Amino acid sequence: MDDKVKIGLIGLGRMGRIYVEALTFRIPRAELVAVADINGEAAKKIAASYRIKHWFDNYPDLLKIEGIRGVVIAASTSVHTEIIVGAAEAGKDIFCEKPVALTLKETDIALRAVKKRKVKFQAGFMRRFDRGYMVAKKKIEEGKIGKPVSFRSISRDPMCPRLDYARVSGGLIMDMAIHDFDLARWLMESEVKRVCAEGGRLVFDQLREADDIDNATINMLFSNGSLGNVEVSRNALYGYDIRTEVLGSEGGIMIGYARHTPVVLLTKKGAAHDFVPYIMERFGEAYTNELKYFVDCIYKDQDPLVAGQDGRAALEIALAATQSYKEAKPVEIPLASQ
Amino acid sequence: MDDKVKIGLIGLGRMGRIYVEALTFRIPRAELVAVADINGEAAKKIAASYRIKHWFDNYPDLLKIEGIRGVVIAASTSVHTEIIVGAAEAGKDIFCEKPVALTLKETDIALRAVKKRKVKFQAGFMRRFDRGYMVAKKKIEEGKIGKPVSFRSISRDPMCPRLDYARVSGGLIMDMAIHDFDLARWLMESEVKRVCAEGGRLVFDQLREADDIDNATINMLFSNGSLGNVEVSRNALYGYDIRTEVLGSEGGIMIGYARHTPVVLLTKKGAAHDFVPYIMERFGEAYTNELKYFVDCIYKDQDPLVAGQDGRAALEIALAATQSYKEAKPVEIPLASQ
Amino acid sequence: MDDKVKIGLIGLGRMGRIYVEALTFRIPRAELVAVADINGEAAKKIAASYRIKHWFDNYPDLLKIEGIRGVVIAASTSVHTEIIVGAAEAGKDIFCEKPVALTLKETDIALRAVKKRKVKFQAGFMRRFDRGYMVAKKKIEEGKIGKPVSFRSISRDPMCPRLDYARVSGGLIMDMAIHDFDLARWLMESEVKRVCAEGGRLVFDQLREADDIDNATINMLFSNGSLGNVEVSRNALYGYDIRTEVLGSEGGIMIGYARHTPVVLLTKKGAAHDFVPYIMERFGEAYTNELKYFVDCIYKDQDPLVAGQDGRAALEIALAATQSYKEAKPVEIPLASQ
Amino acid sequence: MDDKVKIGLIGLGRMGRIYVEALTFRIPRAELVAVADINGEAAKKIAASYRIKHWFDNYPDLLKIEGIRGVVIAASTSVHTEIIVGAAEAGKDIFCEKPVALTLKETDIALRAVKKRKVKFQAGFMRRFDRGYMVAKKKIEEGKIGKPVSFRSISRDPMCPRLDYARVSGGLIMDMAIHDFDLARWLMESEVKRVCAEGGRLVFDQLREADDIDNATINMLFSNGSLGNVEVSRNALYGYDIRTEVLGSEGGIMIGYARHTPVVLLTKKGAAHDFVPYIMERFGEAYTNELKYFVDCIYKDQDPLVAGQDGRAALEIALAATQSYKEAKPVEIPLASQ
Repeated sequence: MDDKVKIGLIGLGRMGRIYVEALTFRIPRAELVAVADINGEAAKKIAASYRIKHWFDNYPDLLKIEGIRGVVIAASTSVHTEIIVGAAEAGKDIFCEKPVALTLKETDIALRAVKKRKVKFQAGFMRRFDRGYMVAKKKIEEGKIGKPVSFRSISRDPMCPRLDYARVSGGLIMDMAIHDFDLARWLMESEVKRVCAEGGRLVFDQLREADDIDNATINMLFSNGSLGNVEVSRNALYGYDIRTEVLGSEGGIMIGYARHTPVVLLTKKGAAHDFVPYIMERFGEAYTNELKYFVDCIYKDQDPLVAGQDGRAALEIALAATQSYKEAKPVEIPLASQ
Repeated sequence: MDDKVKIGLIGLGRMGRIYVEALTFRIPRAELVAVADINGEAAKKIAASYRIKHWFDNYPDLLKIEGIRGVVIAASTSVHTEIIVGAAEAGKDIFCEKPVALTLKETDIALRAVKKRKVKFQAGFMRRFDRGYMVAKKKIEEGKIGKPVSFRSISRDPMCPRLDYARVSGGLIMDMAIHDFDLARWLMESEVKRVCAEGGRLVFDQLREADDIDNATINMLFSNGSLGNVEVSRNALYGYDIRTEVLGSEGGIMIGYARHTPVVLLTKKGAAHDFVPYIMERFGEAYTNELKYFVDCIYKDQDPLVAGQDGRAALEIALAATQSYKEAKPVEIPLASQ
Repeated sequence: MDDKVKIGLIGLGRMGRIYVEALTFRIPRAELVAVADINGEAAKKIAASYRIKHWFDNYPDLLKIEGIRGVVIAASTSVHTEIIVGAAEAGKDIFCEKPVALTLKETDIALRAVKKRKVKFQAGFMRRFDRGYMVAKKKIEEGKIGKPVSFRSISRDPMCPRLDYARVSGGLIMDMAIHDFDLARWLMESEVKRVCAEGGRLVFDQLREADDIDNATINMLFSNGSLGNVEVSRNALYGYDIRTEVLGSEGGIMIGYARHTPVVLLTKKGAAHDFVPYIMERFGEAYTNELKYFVDCIYKDQDPLVAGQDGRAALEIALAATQSYKEAKPVEIPLASQ
Repeated sequence: MDDKVKIGLIGLGRMGRIYVEALTFRIPRAELVAVADINGEAAKKIAASYRIKHWFDNYPDLLKIEGIRGVVIAASTSVHTEIIVGAAEAGKDIFCEKPVALTLKETDIALRAVKKRKVKFQAGFMRRFDRGYMVAKKKIEEGKIGKPVSFRSISRDPMCPRLDYARVSGGLIMDMAIHDFDLARWLMESEVKRVCAEGGRLVFDQLREADDIDNATINMLFSNGSLGNVEVSRNALYGYDIRTEVLGSEGGIMIGYARHTPVVLLTKKGAAHDFVPYIMERFGEAYTNELKYFVDCIYKDQDPLVAGQDGRAALEIALAATQSYKEAKPVEIPLASQ
């Protein structure tokens, strides 16, 4: 366990703190040596708690630290591009939380910097590192379901997001369905060429202030003629409901947990069990796995498989789907201009 | 069990024979007194087997039988309209297999005759009589999931239809999704105002000859703003897969059987169970229930709840969805003209 | 459907009425021509309702009816023996509800009469005619689990029996576990050679008056060294819970329904579904199947596979288990004397 | 995260290494400062890999290390007693893998030393720290199932143990069912007063050399009259199958995972999913939780709830059940003498 890979982390919001935990306790090969957040006090406090050597109230200082090989970016999406460019120029390998950016233009600026400096780049699509999705991918590759012809995915959150978050998230489709779009490309092994979406603000009136919606259903046509649909919702009050299935010419495969604990209560009212409450109960392990993979890629000097191009492609589908919802008509990909 | 309701049945294809069984053995209140089929020999043979008094090689003769109160129409869709008109004019109450017709024009002719002669009319949407769907409807009505905001339904057949059937079926969406469209209107308690479909011939090349497809995904926007999606497929080689779910403002409900027998086999290869093989294993009871309900409506002189208008509305959605797939754009309902 | 098999039915209690329904409506080959019950009025009424030709207030008169080939005995267990002897002497084939009798002595009298007159005899173990158990038996016979080495079965009723029933039932183990003992012999293909039971009156104090208990657990040792356990309970207030599993040298198999309808309700309280409420929802089809099989055996002149010896063997295990509970020690089979 | 609790670990076999991982990476409050194993080279190597300060080829030296507050004992069961006595005399708090010892006599010696020196003692029943079992315990305490009246538990291993392990394990019942006996006491809140077991060597002939069996079923009678049964088996070739259920006067509760990944594969052969492969996939989290709890008890100076008496009680049931199997008769608890 020598030769630890030194990592710096930028952004100490909810996801940032989760990554701090993972890097500190669950990835032996990693050594988290520095954290930065615009809230310097928070950075200081976390550095103390987790015995992290350096803390900063700005990211450029973190990038100057000797020996840091990889940077984990968990800051606001709005500053992803500049941090990616800065990290690339500093020669650091980069892991960036999804989405890379909210526009293709910014994404392209970021990815050009990555390419130019030949640093590694991994997009934060943690579902690809979930045991369930990994097994499904393997079965599909083994030909167990024949040729994949139809993709369906549901992502349902158990609550309305805070308005300040909703305002900068890019909207429901960008915030939630982008994961499903990444799964779609990965599991169907084809690009999406057309989307058509319907959406609505049906439960949470407060989202009007953020000009956001709470439900959407998006049809997809893939380049190879295959079909798909993604449903996203904020109002699954029963829990965090993430399910995907792929139908093929010879069979199908379904991925999804319904239960949290393996307990069934039987009473006069019937049978009852609990449901996955929220994201960490479902994808906690996947979040650790994706960072572990990033650290291993640095250690072994390999290019991560979930690359910048994957981040860009899912973003483009999300942008197209959002536009389709707003204009109530199908939208072709690639998008004409941005 | 006196006062049996005398019934005549027209059309002795696959569904017709199923209805003969149900009427003879499982609906005590019914007495099947006559059957008709253009294949007179088949009618004769079935009449002998089931001890049915009369058989005919044409339906008008059947309609003349004294005492017949209700007519069950299981003939080809292409002749539904003329039989409905004839039966209505003969004063018979009518149960008609779905779809009522393949065009709105014919449907309107049929429904006008029904209205004019004030006979009862029930459309053959058997899923409404399935235990699972009935329970779900009740839960929704009781407010258990709050306001329904999102509908999803999958209908997957385990095989490609015969070409001669595919040619007259109205196509994949008309043949299969019409059931889901009826469920959508019933469970969401709102009309569909816009659909947008994608489809493709992805597995069964032979359907090219019938100009038909084997997979489709259809988005729906309801009048009240709610959303929906229906997926239909012919290539669920693993079994007959019918699942529906409704997400509401306070919860959700899912309807669907995966298993045929309650047996799990555990071996080194993992856990395995069988799947519902086909339609009668899934909806056999519902088919009996819907006819029982029809006979009860005659006996009690009540109007059936699954009325002609329901048949027409589901047809219109299916027509709009088919058009949407062909034109690759959203289609508004009501349809401009037919 | 000519050559119907004429059947007479004796005993019109709860099970008798279920058999009337099955014979009248669901077994085309059968013709129920006569019913008898000590309550003659009940017999008359049912005969009228179901258009059954003959009714009697005593069984000997029924046995005199010309043309009756098979007799279904659903009378009180206490009179099974004399009816079986009478029916055998009248040359009728016999289907007898479980248990054949409450003692081995009476059982042997009945079976001797059957043997002497060479009539067919089928014991009413309907579980063998359940789709789930039939599939499991087939898988075991195909060697899918290797050599069966361990049997487990649970039979739980959702309520306390009426005291008048409990008093004549032979007690909890005799009334409920006898089905599991039959399954054990059938699925394990070995005889039970020793049982050891624990029991108690833990929930329903009122059973003290019937000197009965409400819970028991019975260990079994089979002749071939295999092991087994049966649990029976009256207090599964959540529903009718029947589950069996067999572990083999190469795998295992589990049989059991938990759900009644295929509906899952998802709310803030978690996920909920209903449970099989009671026996007819679970074994209604099996009850029809076993009578259909009996009628077919008569029609095809075959000996039923669920024979008198099977009824006797399950009874002996139940007697041994009851004795074991009372004496708090293992009891060997065959029983020394009765 | 200051004030880390310094821990020493004795025994670096399979379980020992699992505890090393947990103490190093998953329990922030713990600091593993020393390891000991009779194989000094193994201890040295592990110490190097995990950056553990001290390593020894004997446990007394480890006990001399300043600052060690807790000792985790994962050595062979045969030396548990002497290590416990030594650790207690050195004033260390003790976590001991199950079973504490193979005889009540040794157990009593160990527990007396613990009591005398007033050190903390926790027995390694990790199932009590599994999320599923914890939820079930809570539901039972909340009265959700009324009064518990019947306990059932299955523990099935997917393979035959090595003979050298089988020889010193105390036999199948001691090795496996001891966990179920602990669950029984904990969930039923009553002591076991009588057991009656059947067992056999039915699949793995090689166990004859270790004088061990591979299957057993054990009935239990509790002090309060409740009933129970435990089945243990070595030949669940399909996976690691651990299931428990408690039936109460008002309902029931079932605990058990069948699936490993949340993936269902659907093909012409039916539906298939994988099964929990082995112990760490099932109880990995529970093993971490129990050590975390032990470390917290030291930190907060609290007595662990899973105490020495619990280890002794489960041992006594296992001894009684083993004796019952051998003598083929019920055995009362407390055991007369050892």
